[in-house]
Amino acid sequence: MHFTSEQRLDDGTVERHFVLGEVPGVLWTPDSAPEPVPLILMGHPGGLRSMYPRLAGRARGCVAQGFAAATIELPGGGERPAFAVAEQARAELREAIMAGDRPSEEVIDRLVLPLVEQAVPEWRATLDALLDLPEIGGPVGFSGGVIAIGVRLAAIEPRIVAAGLFAGSYVPRSIIEEARQVTIPLHVLLQWDDEGNDRQMALDLFDAFGSPEKTLCANMGGHTGVPSFAGEDAAQFFARHLSEPS
Amino acid sequence: MHFTSEQRLDDGTVERHFVLGEVPGVLWTPDSAPEPVPLILMGHPGGLRSMYPRLAGRARGCVAQGFAAATIELPGGGERPAFAVAEQARAELREAIMAGDRPSEEVIDRLVLPLVEQAVPEWRATLDALLDLPEIGGPVGFSGGVIAIGVRLAAIEPRIVAAGLFAGSYVPRSIIEEARQVTIPLHVLLQWDDEGNDRQMALDLFDAFGSPEKTLCANMGGHTGVPSFAGEDAAQFFARHLSEPS
Repeated sequence: MHFTSEQRLDDGTVERHFVLGEVPGVLWTPDSAPEPVPLILMGHPGGLRSMYPRLAGRARGCVAQGFAAATIELPGGGERPAFAVAEQARAELREAIMAGDRPSEEVIDRLVLPLVEQAVPEWRATLDALLDLPEIGGPVGFSGGVIAIGVRLAAIEPRIVAAGLFAGSYVPRSIIEEARQVTIPLHVLLQWDDEGNDRQMALDLFDAFGSPEKTLCANMGGHTGVPSFAGEDAAQFFARHLSEPS
Repeated sequence: MHFTSEQRLDDGTVERHFVLGEVPGVLWTPDSAPEPVPLILMGHPGGLRSMYPRLAGRARGCVAQGFAAATIELPGGGERPAFAVAEQARAELREAIMAGDRPSEEVIDRLVLPLVEQAVPEWRATLDALLDLPEIGGPVGFSGGVIAIGVRLAAIEPRIVAAGLFAGSYVPRSIIEEARQVTIPLHVLLQWDDEGNDRQMALDLFDAFGSPEKTLCANMGGHTGVPSFAGEDAAQFFARHLSEPS
């Protein structure tokens, strides 16, 4: 992990950009903390630069809770090389949606599964590197999307103890099956009227999770219309699972 | 409204039992408040005496937030005269469930609609009497079940500005239609695995509500297994809508 820049934000949050192998990322940490802090990995739909304002806002919220927050660019996102197989599937998905059709499961698989296959090891390598930093301890949470990446990480990465997932993207059937292996506490946000997505798929996924503690919070509005109070509820979810002695 | 008893609980909450006409009820208020306080009407499935521990716990939570809380006995509940038509329907509903059948819409109508018809005017008369007390001002929220009563109150009682509903009981189709008239902010709790209830009916009801601000919070567990954090989220919902200047 190679840090390429460091700046102190007005609220005392320290923001560092890094590169791990070929993957760029950002780490936000409290200005000073007496002990190593818990960590929240923040997922997003790709495009670190365009997502920066929202990610930095979420990260400041994490830091205000006494956590570190980090994110990395998705395969094919932002400045990273194009991810050809997913690009082709994305174009077909857009075509289907614009024609008013339900996208086929085959297209969803072709869009999402290669992304999961490549991204999950990158997130795990990032986790290795971040947990080597003296200022970061654990436990670790995952927050955000792409939800299929969150599901796979929650299912196979034992260092992630709680996940707040955003049910706002297509989910392959095989990922819904993987969800049955997830046992960590979950807080799932669903935008009830998310245009171009499939509410029933999100409800099926929520039903599939094996976790004894799982909460679905559905709110009105489209993909980017998550109300601020829903963010507060999610913050309390992480406070319960990352801050409190278990 | 005739008060029949008054006691001060260990946390300073004042608990008064009352009778309004033939309807018994309980009012919980802060020990002392500089100004008239908002009010939460607490719904429940009937049987004030057996429900008392849970109701008193919820009421203390309301009072700790600076609200008054009140509830009344349901028609046919507790010491009130039996409600024959609903009793017959309830017996048929139980038979259907024990036989593993889905209860018919006709039985659900016969169980719930007469209850709504009789209970809603009683709640409104209670509201009239409570708002005449100098220590109670407003705004007013409704919290709990029977959800069909909550829907009707939310649809027609303009003094109720926010409702936290428990999607844990059968809902006639006509009430789902009434839900389209509801426009106040809603916080709907759903126990995902509520035995003997119909999850799809609850999702249909949530979908039907006309409110621009509505949140569905689904948690694991059965009818009485609402996790404590779900109660905290509901408390914050009322804090936003009853405490904050609008």
